[in-house]
Amino acid sequence: MAVKFGKQSYKLSGRIYINETACIVGPREKEGPLGEYFDQVEREDYGEDTWEKGEAHYIEATFNKLMGKISLDTKQIDCVFSGDLLNQCMASAIGLKNSNVPFLGLYGACSTMAESMLCASLCMDSNAMTDTIAITSSNFCSAEKQYRFPLELGGQRTPTSQWTVTASGAVYLSCNKSGAVEELKPYIESVTIGKIENYKINDVNNMGAVMAPACASTILSHLRDLSRTPDYYDLILTGDLGYTGSKILLEIMSMHGNDISTRHNDCGKMIFDSASQDTKSGGSGCGCAAAVFTSYIYKLLKNLNLRRVLFVATGALISPVMVKQGEDLLAISHGISIEI
Amino acid sequence: MAVKFGKQSYKLSGRIYINETACIVGPREKEGPLGEYFDQVEREDYGEDTWEKGEAHYIEATFNKLMGKISLDTKQIDCVFSGDLLNQCMASAIGLKNSNVPFLGLYGACSTMAESMLCASLCMDSNAMTDTIAITSSNFCSAEKQYRFPLELGGQRTPTSQWTVTASGAVYLSCNKSGAVEELKPYIESVTIGKIENYKINDVNNMGAVMAPACASTILSHLRDLSRTPDYYDLILTGDLGYTGSKILLEIMSMHGNDISTRHNDCGKMIFDSASQDTKSGGSGCGCAAAVFTSYIYKLLKNLNLRRVLFVATGALISPVMVKQGEDLLAISHGISIEI
Repeated sequence: MAVKFGKQSYKLSGRIYINETACIVGPREKEGPLGEYFDQVEREDYGEDTWEKGEAHYIEATFNKLMGKISLDTKQIDCVFSGDLLNQCMASAIGLKNSNVPFLGLYGACSTMAESMLCASLCMDSNAMTDTIAITSSNFCSAEKQYRFPLELGGQRTPTSQWTVTASGAVYLSCNKSGAVEELKPYIESVTIGKIENYKINDVNNMGAVMAPACASTILSHLRDLSRTPDYYDLILTGDLGYTGSKILLEIMSMHGNDISTRHNDCGKMIFDSASQDTKSGGSGCGCAAAVFTSYIYKLLKNLNLRRVLFVATGALISPVMVKQGEDLLAISHGISIEI
Repeated sequence: MAVKFGKQSYKLSGRIYINETACIVGPREKEGPLGEYFDQVEREDYGEDTWEKGEAHYIEATFNKLMGKISLDTKQIDCVFSGDLLNQCMASAIGLKNSNVPFLGLYGACSTMAESMLCASLCMDSNAMTDTIAITSSNFCSAEKQYRFPLELGGQRTPTSQWTVTASGAVYLSCNKSGAVEELKPYIESVTIGKIENYKINDVNNMGAVMAPACASTILSHLRDLSRTPDYYDLILTGDLGYTGSKILLEIMSMHGNDISTRHNDCGKMIFDSASQDTKSGGSGCGCAAAVFTSYIYKLLKNLNLRRVLFVATGALISPVMVKQGEDLLAISHGISIEI
């Protein structure tokens, strides 16, 4: 049974295991430093005639890959929690339309991987569900088209801009029904629900700066709620602040007396070699945190190279329409503590 | 503790009460048959300079109205579950940016009122949360602009088209911490999570036909999972199928041996007097089911005129981009059983 700590955090029963993951990425991600850890590489359009259909195909294929790995029938999955960046979360709906699994749609922008795992684990902690899937995606081309300019325009990118990751990542969560402790499986120990933060930053080419304060807010709440210091964790994994946002995060954390510099890394910094791949401030998109967590980080956890990870996915709650209407750029960040 | 029944349904502990509701509507809704039951009426733009900002203002004002009614501090609210129809769910983000409450964003199209109450109640059943708010909105003008044509174009409407409701509705859910049964408060007895359904209907002016099969699927699953017949309920309240969709729903239910005609009503049929208000097949939008449920239906429950209601909100998972790309129109429907 979940127990609330402080204002935003919940300690779970310790029975909700991250049992398996799957991840499919695009060619640029495969060429990056984590290339060897991804399950599969596909063209950015996945052979479809539009980027949006391509992104939906990523979700469908990642869902199917995960189902293949866990050798369960879809009937045994209680619910899939999914969302993405496309208007009306279309990649999720189309990608999962043939899944025949109860579906709860989420919108948390690039925080979706954490939000979906968080919602799933709270629903599982009530004993209601025992087997769930959390999944998300993003696609460089569909995101550029929707949020910025058509690729054909060949727009210049600012140094603070981030490169939307083409990927889908999925997690299979399951409860150990017997209540027995499974020694060698990572489990979700606690979660911290984010608040919408508004720091009145209005540069749409600097999402790192928009999201960093929301990320800091969630990490600080998590530490305060659970009476922890940063050294409780082997890794505080944020995603996806990139280089600019990560620098700001460390500064804010320092201002609040928490030096996390020795144990922090960011999915946006890890997925590309920014210098050689020309991805400016790093990776972004729901697929960024999803791809890094479900591949490299999950492997480090399974191999006991990491024993305690605070995974804090960050999302900018922006829409092109609201930007044009002069609204503030909002952000949110959800946190999940994973232990093994 | 929630117990799963069948493939999609969960019986809750009976401690999650619908403690209070709030609802703000536009002028057309106020002029409709349920006008007297709404808390407040506002201009469609709520005094803002764009429809989108107006819709966000509806959410903010409805949230504040609800908080005023329950006389709690926002610090006492564990989480707000919210979503809407605007791209990137902007009405929810902007409307709640000053709330300072932990936020989980959802996307369920017009099923959002049921989806948000469902997610909230599953999170509360784990004891994690005790006080939550579920809220959603829609706006005729912002929806027309985004999904169809600018209003200035003066487009003709087909007989099967529905009129997006301008409204925001919110529900305050709370657990009785002592475990004592509260006799005169409606509570969420069970929930049924919908699946994405695809009946290959591709008329964007006939959302009722797109959603009716998903609605029937969820009602049939609910009845089968919990071994109930339709006469268990005083009212099976769907929303928002309108006249066309309701007719199709009754036909599908009959084909499956369930005559629900004597106990069915639909939020899309109830909110307008279609003949005099020229709203064609009826109301639609997240705000339709939200407004009808949080005003008239909640009052009937509180007054014991209804004792068992199955509330099944229906959503079309469509985006204008995917429609132009020839994708099938998808739908989902989530069910909540409310008793007093």
